[in-house]
Amino acid sequence: MLKELTVNTPHEGFVEITSQVAEIVRQSRGEKNLCQVFVPHTTAGVTINENADPDVVKDMLLALNHIVPKLAYQHGEGNSRAHVKASMVGSSVSVPIINGTLHLGTWQGIYFCEFDGPRKRKVYVTIL
Amino acid sequence: MLKELTVNTPHEGFVEITSQVAEIVRQSRGEKNLCQVFVPHTTAGVTINENADPDVVKDMLLALNHIVPKLAYQHGEGNSRAHVKASMVGSSVSVPIINGTLHLGTWQGIYFCEFDGPRKRKVYVTIL
Amino acid sequence: MLKELTVNTPHEGFVEITSQVAEIVRQSRGEKNLCQVFVPHTTAGVTINENADPDVVKDMLLALNHIVPKLAYQHGEGNSRAHVKASMVGSSVSVPIINGTLHLGTWQGIYFCEFDGPRKRKVYVTIL
Repeated sequence: MLKELTVNTPHEGFVEITSQVAEIVRQSRGEKNLCQVFVPHTTAGVTINENADPDVVKDMLLALNHIVPKLAYQHGEGNSRAHVKASMVGSSVSVPIINGTLHLGTWQGIYFCEFDGPRKRKVYVTIL
Repeated sequence: MLKELTVNTPHEGFVEITSQVAEIVRQSRGEKNLCQVFVPHTTAGVTINENADPDVVKDMLLALNHIVPKLAYQHGEGNSRAHVKASMVGSSVSVPIINGTLHLGTWQGIYFCEFDGPRKRKVYVTIL
Repeated sequence: MLKELTVNTPHEGFVEITSQVAEIVRQSRGEKNLCQVFVPHTTAGVTINENADPDVVKDMLLALNHIVPKLAYQHGEGNSRAHVKASMVGSSVSVPIINGTLHLGTWQGIYFCEFDGPRKRKVYVTIL
């Protein structure tokens, strides 16, 4: 069973989507053992990290912008660094489900990672 | 149900395997909700990124070669940078399946990432 | 079906958990097609890499410490670099299961990646 979310993103940044994903899990029928969150874009990704202090994801973006260098890239659209960041964080995360709810750690949240916005983005949520 | 693919790789580079994976999904019987693509090697990985402009994956390799430094590594085989790149892109990707076909985004392709070739490599495809 | 492992970690380092995960797979009942290993922490991760030469994971840690820069991070706890490394390696890995056993490559092992220890950590293992 696949459900689709829409995420409106800023220029660049991490948008938390934990509650929307949790709601899809809650409303899902039948067997529920694992939830996959998939991003069908190539200049965005998804990651799990701390959601208690909002500075953590800002620091992550700061670090990624230092890690991925400005080079003589060939891709004509000029957003190669966004493509690199997307593959570094990855296009999907999966979270175990226990008693019908996402079994995340205490400080974990699910973040849509925008590296080339602002855009209207999609996220696919699959329950297994 | 697991199927195995063979990929012949260049010295270093990203080899698209989307059509081979899609064909396995198409021929698979029974329930099909998610497709996992797994690389059973430690100096190669798999990622999802743009397949419209072939320059994108070349730019990604260029970036990774700048990001992963040449250091005084201890591993005797001399390919520690390949191992680091493998863990950075990851050993598997998973893609939702809808109506019996891979539900990738418009610009997404699945790439085998060779960091220590040329080699004859294997890929495991599991349908859930 | 989810099982929980406990991992006692050093200050920073990769702890192999392959045999514990394999044992959970072995004892599991019912259908077994894929094993997901999930880390419910935000300054630790999990990756698959070579377990023949223990220098490989030491080299990986050396590289990650060079790749993730010391910057003017805002997060008050002072461990932002650990959060960045966690998202770079990722919070889960998945391994195909064939004939009831983990179908890893010859040189592959599953590693808990501690970036902010020493700690008593948890790992969730889900069989699908």
